[in-house]
Amino acid sequence: MTELLLVGIGTGNPEHLTLQAVRALNSADLILIPRKGKNKADLAELRRTICEEVISNPATQIVEFELPKRDADNPNYRQGVDDWHDAIASVWAEAMDGLPDQARVALLVWGDPSLYDSTMRIAARLKPAPEISVIPGITSMQGLTAAHKIPLNTIGTPVLITTGRRLREEGWPDGADRLLVMLDGECSFQHIPSDGVMIWWGAYVGMREEILLSGALREMMDEIVETRAAARAHHGWIMDIYLLSREPEGDGESA
Amino acid sequence: MTELLLVGIGTGNPEHLTLQAVRALNSADLILIPRKGKNKADLAELRRTICEEVISNPATQIVEFELPKRDADNPNYRQGVDDWHDAIASVWAEAMDGLPDQARVALLVWGDPSLYDSTMRIAARLKPAPEISVIPGITSMQGLTAAHKIPLNTIGTPVLITTGRRLREEGWPDGADRLLVMLDGECSFQHIPSDGVMIWWGAYVGMREEILLSGALREMMDEIVETRAAARAHHGWIMDIYLLSREPEGDGESA
Ligand SMILES: C[S@@+](CC[C@H](N)C(=O)[O-])C[C@H]1O[C@@H](n2cnc3c(N)ncnc32)[C@H](O)[C@@H]1O
Ligand SMILES: C[S@@+](CC[C@H](N)C(=O)[O-])C[C@H]1O[C@@H](n2cnc3c(N)ncnc32)[C@H](O)[C@@H]1O
Repeated sequence: MTELLLVGIGTGNPEHLTLQAVRALNSADLILIPRKGKNKADLAELRRTICEEVISNPATQIVEFELPKRDADNPNYRQGVDDWHDAIASVWAEAMDGLPDQARVALLVWGDPSLYDSTMRIAARLKPAPEISVIPGITSMQGLTAAHKIPLNTIGTPVLITTGRRLREEGWPDGADRLLVMLDGECSFQHIPSDGVMIWWGAYVGMREEILLSGALREMMDEIVETRAAARAHHGWIMDIYLLSREPEGDGESA
Repeated sequence: MTELLLVGIGTGNPEHLTLQAVRALNSADLILIPRKGKNKADLAELRRTICEEVISNPATQIVEFELPKRDADNPNYRQGVDDWHDAIASVWAEAMDGLPDQARVALLVWGDPSLYDSTMRIAARLKPAPEISVIPGITSMQGLTAAHKIPLNTIGTPVLITTGRRLREEGWPDGADRLLVMLDGECSFQHIPSDGVMIWWGAYVGMREEILLSGALREMMDEIVETRAAARAHHGWIMDIYLLSREPEGDGESA
């Protein structure tokens, strides 16, 4: 049986790698690196750098593969994603074809493999099923809080991890006075009441290009929108994340 | 100005350390390790092991200090915590007294410094204020999902990070079909309706003592309660965490 190592690599700082990840990569016979044509957002360059810096095992092969594109025109979103995951699994299977029994194959997963990432779901489609190991990595959420030097939560209170789309479509959900928003291409913080809300925003967190902004949402909103647009135009791609905090309702004890 | 490095060390597996954490520890003049008397839950032993394994700088001093106790009898919980944090800050200040200007002092923070941890809040009480650096670490949340080989979230849906006390007192909150529960000394999952709920539970995650259980909450509940009690009695301490998932209400697209 093949062993598939899903290795969290952190979010752009090669030093985010854990000792466990370094060991796992060096134990691999094959490392698969995805490419999206000439798209810089594939971060293939960074994955290559990470491999160069930490792999000392001469037997480890690094192979790049072209990542299939999702059919964005499929009116059924779920079906489109399903088909796409099938296509990716096929490309992996092809790249792994001909490997000896018991081969170890590693995939470098951005951030942590458990957080808004489909690598585990795609791996589950492989036949015959490989043995899977998951190696945790620093998330963009932790990258954000470390860069701003802030706790994620106030003492004993909950935090909701959610997406830009949810925030836009459903507003501030009940159940938490702190929201960690990811996967937001549209600065969705513009669509909620900003009164009493604080924001800690970061783009390219952990990377050389890192940009951090924070303050009262009302005052920072426009600056973040403009900074994001300019950075995106400049680099050709962007990844950003933010924490929102509003005054807790009711009991002071929960602060 | 002193520089204070708050270094996330992961949750028990010394290999959770990142390359950045290893570098930070080796750059420190002084590393402070907290002890709670003879209490094994202080994990001082593990912190010592981590330091022994990764520190190659002979100039780095490691000093243990006795962690002050929180006055659990203070009827005002917030005030009790406040006083306690002040007391810890004083002990740190004492340990750092006499260090040369520009000294670098490191504190090993369990998991990630941003997640249910007060190290940053305590550090903010130091006078004169040191320069603070935060180095992210693998959280117990990621340790749990990696060990169970599961994603934290279903595609595009939110997850609420919360505490046992909240779950017990307020039930399943609105806004998320997945809950990641920490700081739960009382198996609070017993106090919610278990119909259609799945649980992934882990104790001592990432450590030699690791225990994992998962399945339908209704069927696993008693076994988890018993396993937890037995493990706690056996080791003299326990740390556990779990993910709960319920069927999403309404729209299939959110699954
Ligand atoms: C598909 S998710 C993958 C998340 C990843 N698994 C993690 O653990 O952070 C991509 C989203 O993560 C966030 N993200 C990832 N890396 C980032 C970075 N370096 N800076 C800012 N946001 C980042 C952004 O919100 C982005 O839309
Ligand atoms: C004070 S919080 C600190 C959390 C830590 N900063 C982190 O990033 O995981 C302590 C809680 O974390 C969880 N925890 C920490 N380490 C754990 C481990 N190795 N196994 C299971 N749960 C753990 C438990 O829920 C525990 O009550």
